[in-house]
Amino acid sequence: MNIRPAVEQDRDAIWNIFHEVVAAGDTYAFDPQTLREEALAYWFRADTHTYIAEQEKKIVGTYILRANQGGAGSHVANAAFMVAPNAQGQGIGRAMGEHCLSEARRLGFRAMQFNLVISANESAIRLWQQLGFKIVGTLPGAFRHPQKGYVDVYVMFRSLEDTR
Amino acid sequence: MNIRPAVEQDRDAIWNIFHEVVAAGDTYAFDPQTLREEALAYWFRADTHTYIAEQEKKIVGTYILRANQGGAGSHVANAAFMVAPNAQGQGIGRAMGEHCLSEARRLGFRAMQFNLVISANESAIRLWQQLGFKIVGTLPGAFRHPQKGYVDVYVMFRSLEDTR
Repeated sequence: MNIRPAVEQDRDAIWNIFHEVVAAGDTYAFDPQTLREEALAYWFRADTHTYIAEQEKKIVGTYILRANQGGAGSHVANAAFMVAPNAQGQGIGRAMGEHCLSEARRLGFRAMQFNLVISANESAIRLWQQLGFKIVGTLPGAFRHPQKGYVDVYVMFRSLEDTR
Repeated sequence: MNIRPAVEQDRDAIWNIFHEVVAAGDTYAFDPQTLREEALAYWFRADTHTYIAEQEKKIVGTYILRANQGGAGSHVANAAFMVAPNAQGQGIGRAMGEHCLSEARRLGFRAMQFNLVISANESAIRLWQQLGFKIVGTLPGAFRHPQKGYVDVYVMFRSLEDTR
């Protein structure tokens, strides 16, 4: 697997992944009807570092890395990850997570925060915990899950200052 | 005191308050160098309800109310409040907070979340607790305070479903 910064020619593949992941509606708070141009504008926003993961020249995952807040909060990174549904369970999320932590350190961030981890998304929570994140907040019923109704949302956080 | 939706003619007064509050750098994660047009674009964003508080025809405070997330997270409101520095300590923040909770209920939100309450901002924390918010998360060192260095940030949350 290779992980690299995304380029213009990756936009179709990224949109396909984004659309599939968001249509499922169980992991992200994007409107499932989000249009291609809106989605790509968000994923390639000027303040955002965008990456893809590829296997045998096929793009199987994508992630973004940016400051979670401006000004006096800009030392904390935020990131979002998407793996193509037909490529899940192969360690692509973990590889992107490790790459992302490394990139965040390289860019000078002091910590990383996820604002919206769905409590029902157990495999993601386990992965982030294995990568050193802790649940630092619980938002009661803050996500309307398509099968489970209102479920809690976790805020997860880890310092990047410690050595690993 | 009167609180009402903001109109075009309020932009100068809102910018003056925004600029003064953000320049102090101790309550918001906006770049203190934020330009007028950026600030007003954010404060009047298409998905945002913008209000002002006025006393004797002078605008002394402003707040915004919007969904904190899109899609399956859009039932949770977010809000941000600013009081003119020379009008603080007169209950304007509290009056806007109560107005905001009422507006959020009217608009159908089920809960309200603040993503970035600076732990050093004790008067704000006390006010939100009095208005029914709880600290549901603590982000270690997530804000660079101009006098105190890195300080914790709280995530605060309250349901709007209960009767008060």
